[in-house]
Amino acid sequence: MHADDLLNSNYVKWMLAEEAPASDIVISSRIRLARNLNLIPFPHLLDQKSGERSLAEIQAAWQKSQDPILREMELLTFDQLSPLDRQILVEKHLISPNHAAANEHYRGLLVNRDGALAIMINEEDHLRIQCLLPGLQVEACYEMAERIDDQLEKNLNFAFDESRGYLTACPTNVGTGMRASVMLHLPAITLTGLANAIFQNIAQLGMTVRGLYGEGSEVVGNLYQVSNQVTLGQSEEDIINNLTTITAQMVDQERIMRSRLANETRFQLEDRVGRAFGILTNARIMTSNEALNLLSDVRLGVDLGIIKDIRPFALNELMAAVSPAHLQKRSGQEMDPFQRDVKRAEVIKEKLG
Amino acid sequence: MHADDLLNSNYVKWMLAEEAPASDIVISSRIRLARNLNLIPFPHLLDQKSGERSLAEIQAAWQKSQDPILREMELLTFDQLSPLDRQILVEKHLISPNHAAANEHYRGLLVNRDGALAIMINEEDHLRIQCLLPGLQVEACYEMAERIDDQLEKNLNFAFDESRGYLTACPTNVGTGMRASVMLHLPAITLTGLANAIFQNIAQLGMTVRGLYGEGSEVVGNLYQVSNQVTLGQSEEDIINNLTTITAQMVDQERIMRSRLANETRFQLEDRVGRAFGILTNARIMTSNEALNLLSDVRLGVDLGIIKDIRPFALNELMAAVSPAHLQKRSGQEMDPFQRDVKRAEVIKEKLG
Repeated sequence: MHADDLLNSNYVKWMLAEEAPASDIVISSRIRLARNLNLIPFPHLLDQKSGERSLAEIQAAWQKSQDPILREMELLTFDQLSPLDRQILVEKHLISPNHAAANEHYRGLLVNRDGALAIMINEEDHLRIQCLLPGLQVEACYEMAERIDDQLEKNLNFAFDESRGYLTACPTNVGTGMRASVMLHLPAITLTGLANAIFQNIAQLGMTVRGLYGEGSEVVGNLYQVSNQVTLGQSEEDIINNLTTITAQMVDQERIMRSRLANETRFQLEDRVGRAFGILTNARIMTSNEALNLLSDVRLGVDLGIIKDIRPFALNELMAAVSPAHLQKRSGQEMDPFQRDVKRAEVIKEKLG
Repeated sequence: MHADDLLNSNYVKWMLAEEAPASDIVISSRIRLARNLNLIPFPHLLDQKSGERSLAEIQAAWQKSQDPILREMELLTFDQLSPLDRQILVEKHLISPNHAAANEHYRGLLVNRDGALAIMINEEDHLRIQCLLPGLQVEACYEMAERIDDQLEKNLNFAFDESRGYLTACPTNVGTGMRASVMLHLPAITLTGLANAIFQNIAQLGMTVRGLYGEGSEVVGNLYQVSNQVTLGQSEEDIINNLTTITAQMVDQERIMRSRLANETRFQLEDRVGRAFGILTNARIMTSNEALNLLSDVRLGVDLGIIKDIRPFALNELMAAVSPAHLQKRSGQEMDPFQRDVKRAEVIKEKLG
C-alpha cells in the first residue's frame, strides 16, 4: 500500500525542487477545487448516515473511473489513519489541519503514490481536489486537478448553480471553488524589510498572504503562502494567470534583493548562512520555529552557492522531517515538546552534518 | 632573538594548561613585585635624563647577574618595539595596557624565552617583576619572582623603608609591593547566578575581582582575575596562602556547579556547548567579546568531555590569537574593526574547524 510509503518516508512530490521552474524561490504550487454532492448536507451538517453516503458515492465514482491517474490513487478513511498519521499528512501538506482534527470514519483521503494528487473527503466540502507540485507550476496543477474533477463529475452529481457556479460550504469558495496558491521562500525581501509593502500591494490585487500551514498559521522560515482571495466573478484562467504573473514578479524582486545582498553585504550574508549551518549541525535542542528559520538561512546559502553539497530537495524533506508528527513516527513513540526538540536537533544533525 | 618568537607566535608559558594543577578552572597564576630605585624619581616624574639613568641602572644590574634565569632574559626597550608589538605583549599578559601606551625609549621590558618571567621597566614603578604560570601555582610564581628580586637587589639599591617596606609610586602598593592574582574561568558559577554573591564574599576577605586585562577591564568569557587588595600589614606568605585558599574554594564550588549542570541539565549544557562550537567554526564575522564568550562555552565543553580533540592549550593560545594586535601582526597590516572581525572568524575557523 503506497499510503505506508507516504506515512513512513519524508518524501512527497512537491519536494522535488530540482525538476521545477523557479524552485529556488517557489517551493510549491497548489490548486485546490472545492466540490460538493447534490442532495447531501454539507460536511459540517453530516450525521453518520449521510456521511457514509457521501463517502460511498465518492468511493464508487473513483472506482468506476478508468483514468490511470485516478486508478493509481488509494483510499484512506479515517478509521485507517491514527491521529499521528493524519498529522503526518498535514505536515506533508496533503490534508488540512482541520481535516486532521476530525474523527469520523467517513472522513478520508484519496491520494496518489507521490502525493502530488490528494482528494480530501468530507473536509469542509465533500471533496477537496488538490494538486501540489514543486516550483512555479500553477497551470500544470490546474490541468491535473481539472482532469480529476472531470473524471469524477462523470459519475457524481456536483452541487452547481448556473449563476453562482459551484456551491460550497463556505460562501468564500462559491463560484470556481478554486484556490490557487504558491509557497514562496522570500528571505531577501524579508531581510531588506520590503515584505510588508509588497504584501500590501498583493492584497490590492485580490491575493492573500499566509504562513506555512495556510489560514491562521504564522509565517516562519520566511515562507509565505500566496493565494487568490476571490473565487467568484473570475474565471479559473484569470485566477491562474493573475497568481502566476504576481508570483513571477515576486520571484524577480527576490532575485534582485538576493544579488544585492550578495554583492553589497557579502560577508554579513556568509556570516548569517554560516552561523545557521553551524547551529543546525551542532545544537542539541531545537524548536520547530528556530529550525525553520535557520533552514531558511541555509536554503538561501544553497541558492547563492555559499553552501555546496546540500540539495534543495534535502531541505524540503527536512522541513517535513523535523515536524512534530514526523519526529514521533520516526521515534515510534509519543514525545513531549522537549523530547521532540532534542529529537529534532538529532535528525537535523544526521541529515546536514 | 627570542623576543621575535614571543611577538610572532601565539605561545607563552601560561597557556600550557596541560602541565598545571587545577588548570581546568585556573587559567593562570601571577605574582608581580613593584620595586623602585633609590634617589631616582618615580616613573611618572621621570625626565629623559633620569629615565635613562633608571634604565641604565637596571640594565647594568641584570648584566652583572650570574643567575641563569636572569642571563636567559632579553632586554627590549620601547625604541625596539612598535605600538603593535607592545599591544601584542599586552594580549599575552606580559606587560600592562598602561605600559604599552607609553612611548619613551627608556621604558622597556626584560623577558625570558617562554614569557613566564617579565620585568617591566619604568612602568608605574621602576621595576615590576612578574612571574606568570599556568594553573594554580601562586607559590611557585612567588618563588621565581623572589629569586629575580634577590638577584637584582644585589646590584640595585631599592627604595625601602624599615617601617613601611618597599616604597611605590602608588600608595596602594606600598609594603610588600606584591600583587598576587589568579585568572579563573567560572562559567558554571556565572551560569547559575552565583558569581555576584561569591565575589562579595571575596571582597570582604581583602580580594578584588577584575576582568581579563586587570583594573578597569570588563569581564568577558567568564574570565575573572582575582587578586589581593592589600599590600601593607600582611606578609607575602599570608597573601599567597590567602589567595591560594580562596582560589581552591572557588575551584571546588565551580566543580560542584559544573557537575550539577552536567547531571541536571545535560541536554541544555550540550546544546550550549554545541552551538558555541558551531558558531565559532562557521561564522564569517566575529567580535572579540563574542569570541571570548563562545570560547568560554567550548572550554567548558572540553573540560566536561562534551567536546573531544581540542586541547585547553589550543584555547588559551586562541584567546591571544584572536586579540586585535595578534590579528594585525598575522595579517601584516593595520585593520579596522570590521576587517579584524572577519580575520578573527577566519583564524578561529582555521584553528578549531
